[in-house]
Amino acid sequence: MARRRMVYEGKAKILYEGPEPGTLIQFFKDDTTAGNGEKHAQIEGKGVLNNRLSELFMTGLNNIGVPTHFIRRINMREQLVRAVEIVPLEIVVRNVAAGSMSKRLGIEEGTALPRPIIEFYYKNDDLNDPIVSEEHIIAFGWATQQDIDDMISLALRVNDFMSGMMMAVGIKLVDFKIETGRVYEGDFQRLIVADEISPDSCRLWDIETGQKLDKDVFRRDLGSLTDAYTEVARRLGVMPRNTSSGSGPKLVH
Amino acid sequence: MARRRMVYEGKAKILYEGPEPGTLIQFFKDDTTAGNGEKHAQIEGKGVLNNRLSELFMTGLNNIGVPTHFIRRINMREQLVRAVEIVPLEIVVRNVAAGSMSKRLGIEEGTALPRPIIEFYYKNDDLNDPIVSEEHIIAFGWATQQDIDDMISLALRVNDFMSGMMMAVGIKLVDFKIETGRVYEGDFQRLIVADEISPDSCRLWDIETGQKLDKDVFRRDLGSLTDAYTEVARRLGVMPRNTSSGSGPKLVH
Repeated sequence: MARRRMVYEGKAKILYEGPEPGTLIQFFKDDTTAGNGEKHAQIEGKGVLNNRLSELFMTGLNNIGVPTHFIRRINMREQLVRAVEIVPLEIVVRNVAAGSMSKRLGIEEGTALPRPIIEFYYKNDDLNDPIVSEEHIIAFGWATQQDIDDMISLALRVNDFMSGMMMAVGIKLVDFKIETGRVYEGDFQRLIVADEISPDSCRLWDIETGQKLDKDVFRRDLGSLTDAYTEVARRLGVMPRNTSSGSGPKLVH
Repeated sequence: MARRRMVYEGKAKILYEGPEPGTLIQFFKDDTTAGNGEKHAQIEGKGVLNNRLSELFMTGLNNIGVPTHFIRRINMREQLVRAVEIVPLEIVVRNVAAGSMSKRLGIEEGTALPRPIIEFYYKNDDLNDPIVSEEHIIAFGWATQQDIDDMISLALRVNDFMSGMMMAVGIKLVDFKIETGRVYEGDFQRLIVADEISPDSCRLWDIETGQKLDKDVFRRDLGSLTDAYTEVARRLGVMPRNTSSGSGPKLVH
């Protein structure tokens, strides 16, 4: 079988040419990075978990009419997605202050925000993905005002849906990041949710205990990342519910 | 202790004067009706389950910034709510054709709708809550165009959130009904979600089996209503997870 052509390799995923025009195959690696790659590790099984979880969330979003690039999962580590023209912005929605917002604005981590706050970051590793305002976005042509309005609408719908999913299983959705991509349908173009939605791109805290179930476990050396992600998956019913949480996922390779 | 003054008695709930101005106590009865009261039964424990479930959903909505009348649960059957001026409209959001829409429009029950469809019904028992259009609503002064826009926004956010909650526990949110009420804050007035959100006011189907977990179990004589509602509550973690589902809830009276 001929090896597929790689289209792009990122820190945690690889994109290959898809089986038909307008599609790509998104491969989830076990590579885990923090601090824009300064900290790096292979975490066995992480790619499998994120593939499954991103499938679950994106399928749910597609079902409620929030358009995403997700078409179907192919195997343990790969999913078929629509090819999009990625908008070079990370869209962050925050319900509770944490991470860079707490640091930048001096707001104690865990402080509930008066309403969900949306931030945009310019996707550029060389610059460490700097935060930007709508002024920058429009002036530098990364997106139009209409795009920004559409991104905000998408992000807020994702927030409502994901908050519900997480709340149902005892998890607080503290914040998350999405990316969007442009698709062309005849003369019409629109933005859809792209990339992934997973514990790599969300902050997830147990509602009762405050325990972190997201990439901060890796960033801050708080224990086993696979245990944390497995717990999220288990609560959402995407793995056998009797999977032991003590020894990491059994489902890799 | 002086008996509280009853403000309103409906088919499934009673409203009493609250402990302070602007509040009411909402009491959940076990009475269950269908066909605008034609079919009537006492279903032991139903009020307790709906009180708990409505608390869960309304708390979640308050948390994500969808304003509701819910303040706090007082006991097994009562919750403290904000007094509102009820808008005489039932707002129905449908994701899948069922019930009266299937009948009225000849769409087979279970057909996925192209997008969530919102319907308004005029709250009037003598008329069997007839379906109405925005034209009727505005012409007869039940609500303004701005109110309708606000009701639609609220209803769609409730749909996104509730779809997420339900999907996380393997349940499809087929449709639901909400009511809204007007509150006055200084010179400003706005609409908030009122009444209840429970399996009495939603259609909930198990995603795997299609089993009905809502009031249709009563309307259509499909088995034990308390078993169905207990199953919803159990999945959402609001009751002991080891509650037997065979003999109905143990928690009444």
